[in-house]
Amino acid sequence: MKQTHDNLRPIRWENDQLYLLDQRKLPFSREELVLHHAHEVAAAIRDMVVRGAPAIGIAAAYGAVLAVRQAYTTQGQHWREHIETDFAQLSASRPTAVNLNWALARMREALATIPPNTDPVPTVLQLADQIHHRDITDNYAMGEFGADILGEGACILTHCNTGSLATGGYGTALGVIRTAYRRGQVSVIFADETRPWLQGSRLTAWELQQDGIPVTLLPDSAAGSLMQQKKINWVIVGADRITANGDVANKIGTYSLAVLAKYHGVRFMVVAPSSTIDWQRDSGADIPIEQRAAEEVTTLAGQTIAPAGIGAWNPVFDVTPVNLIDAIVTERGAVLEPCRGGLRQLFPHQN
Amino acid sequence: MKQTHDNLRPIRWENDQLYLLDQRKLPFSREELVLHHAHEVAAAIRDMVVRGAPAIGIAAAYGAVLAVRQAYTTQGQHWREHIETDFAQLSASRPTAVNLNWALARMREALATIPPNTDPVPTVLQLADQIHHRDITDNYAMGEFGADILGEGACILTHCNTGSLATGGYGTALGVIRTAYRRGQVSVIFADETRPWLQGSRLTAWELQQDGIPVTLLPDSAAGSLMQQKKINWVIVGADRITANGDVANKIGTYSLAVLAKYHGVRFMVVAPSSTIDWQRDSGADIPIEQRAAEEVTTLAGQTIAPAGIGAWNPVFDVTPVNLIDAIVTERGAVLEPCRGGLRQLFPHQN
Repeated sequence: MKQTHDNLRPIRWENDQLYLLDQRKLPFSREELVLHHAHEVAAAIRDMVVRGAPAIGIAAAYGAVLAVRQAYTTQGQHWREHIETDFAQLSASRPTAVNLNWALARMREALATIPPNTDPVPTVLQLADQIHHRDITDNYAMGEFGADILGEGACILTHCNTGSLATGGYGTALGVIRTAYRRGQVSVIFADETRPWLQGSRLTAWELQQDGIPVTLLPDSAAGSLMQQKKINWVIVGADRITANGDVANKIGTYSLAVLAKYHGVRFMVVAPSSTIDWQRDSGADIPIEQRAAEEVTTLAGQTIAPAGIGAWNPVFDVTPVNLIDAIVTERGAVLEPCRGGLRQLFPHQN
Repeated sequence: MKQTHDNLRPIRWENDQLYLLDQRKLPFSREELVLHHAHEVAAAIRDMVVRGAPAIGIAAAYGAVLAVRQAYTTQGQHWREHIETDFAQLSASRPTAVNLNWALARMREALATIPPNTDPVPTVLQLADQIHHRDITDNYAMGEFGADILGEGACILTHCNTGSLATGGYGTALGVIRTAYRRGQVSVIFADETRPWLQGSRLTAWELQQDGIPVTLLPDSAAGSLMQQKKINWVIVGADRITANGDVANKIGTYSLAVLAKYHGVRFMVVAPSSTIDWQRDSGADIPIEQRAAEEVTTLAGQTIAPAGIGAWNPVFDVTPVNLIDAIVTERGAVLEPCRGGLRQLFPHQN
């Protein structure tokens, strides 16, 4: 399966081992962790060794493989009774990205088909590989669908990291940007630095640099001024969860960008695979929003940047209502004006 | 003249010397620089040893004192011919805050009144002291006027640092917050961290902590979500320049907050002394906006946070049009709905 760049592979399974690229240390140090147990995968997701909704789903699928392998190795044919703790840890590792539980549900479906007295590992490993590879294929499809609606001379702002590092490879929003750039449709790309975790500065800037695509960083707070000065005509972002009506939970700051885009007549595109869609929820009002530690705001790379004892509000995601979104792009195609309900029509079997 | 806290004095003139608190190092290290020459003051303003529009004006006034003293000490009665280089350097040290040239113009007016064969230093020093003390008095007046229109149970978001450190003492927007807090009108205070320079995390959080006033930091990008969740009903900010029509240049991110506030029905207050008003400009369209080095975005607290070679867009200010502003508070009083032109009515001699 083609990737944008070998350097950028966040997850790989080789020689019966799971490798995760430690994204906390990028781009300054490139370290891969080798994980042997599902609880290590759960910890890696929680601690953001791996992040990005699709990548979290893929990592959880391989985590499930490790859970099943360990149960089968130690318990033999009683393996089924010994995977629940691991699955529960994986499921609870982060609350907002729905891809995580989507992947675990698919693994459970596959486990249910395994006959007695059979080694379950080949089946679940094959499914994890398939989820991984399918994610990359879907990214390329979204890249085409998204670029098709961008037009020529696009001036783009993106937020957070939605590239190879956030997915199986290539990217969602950044996949659209990559495809459009290669087609010659892009005039300029801006990336928000994306505090507090700096996914824009550390990951998106690095990814685009590896691909030789020029990008200019800006402080998150400068996005309004960027639009006021008519320097962009599209905001393109990913998603951690999309509800059935088209509301979008994504990295904190996405909602501000959507309001600013609406005010300035800048178009707003969300790019995510269907594994991101939570058909069980009608709207974004009750999506669980993860709060992370104040220290992510009051420290940086281990250095304190605020006085001791000061608290911080650190919601990791926000919810953008569908009425602020001009297009949702999935691997099945793009839905324009998704507030008119087109998302369900793209996935008729979900009705 | 009363100050909020001796620790927080950004500028003091004592024993014929100018002391500037080095705000680049706060709150982790409290160091005062002693400056002997006007060109050192210009460098200190440019390098943000001292920042905040009113404080820059006061520092420039004392810088003018140093220029005059040096010219008089070395050139005697020919001092007038030897101050222009220093005045030009002071004037050019930062482009956006109009208080700087307002202070220098007042110093020139005073210099014009000095008879031949007279030591000019006592006159200019007296005026610099007066500018300094008047700024503090004005801050207290603005605190009262602003608090008068806040109402009870105010839930406030502020941006950047507009407190004692940004002024002669006490503060503009933060002065209103201090006065309202002491009157018991405030339910909660949030402060944007204010990338790239982190004035919110480093300075505002520290100032409020010194005063025993609780404050919660947030990433700049979380302000939209904060408003969506109805956690605030006022945004209160300072200004670096206000044009005659009421448009406001202020710290980057202010414009985004104003658009978000309008969208959410959150009220938006600007607090600044009349020395911030540029009566020569009709609107904010042509206010010079300082661009600072990309390194302010690609590094943080001396640490690199983006890949080498990545560029950044780093405008230090943005312009908020008056139609997004609910109140402008000056030392003469508050102007509600300033888009109706009330600012000129508050200062009739400027018509």
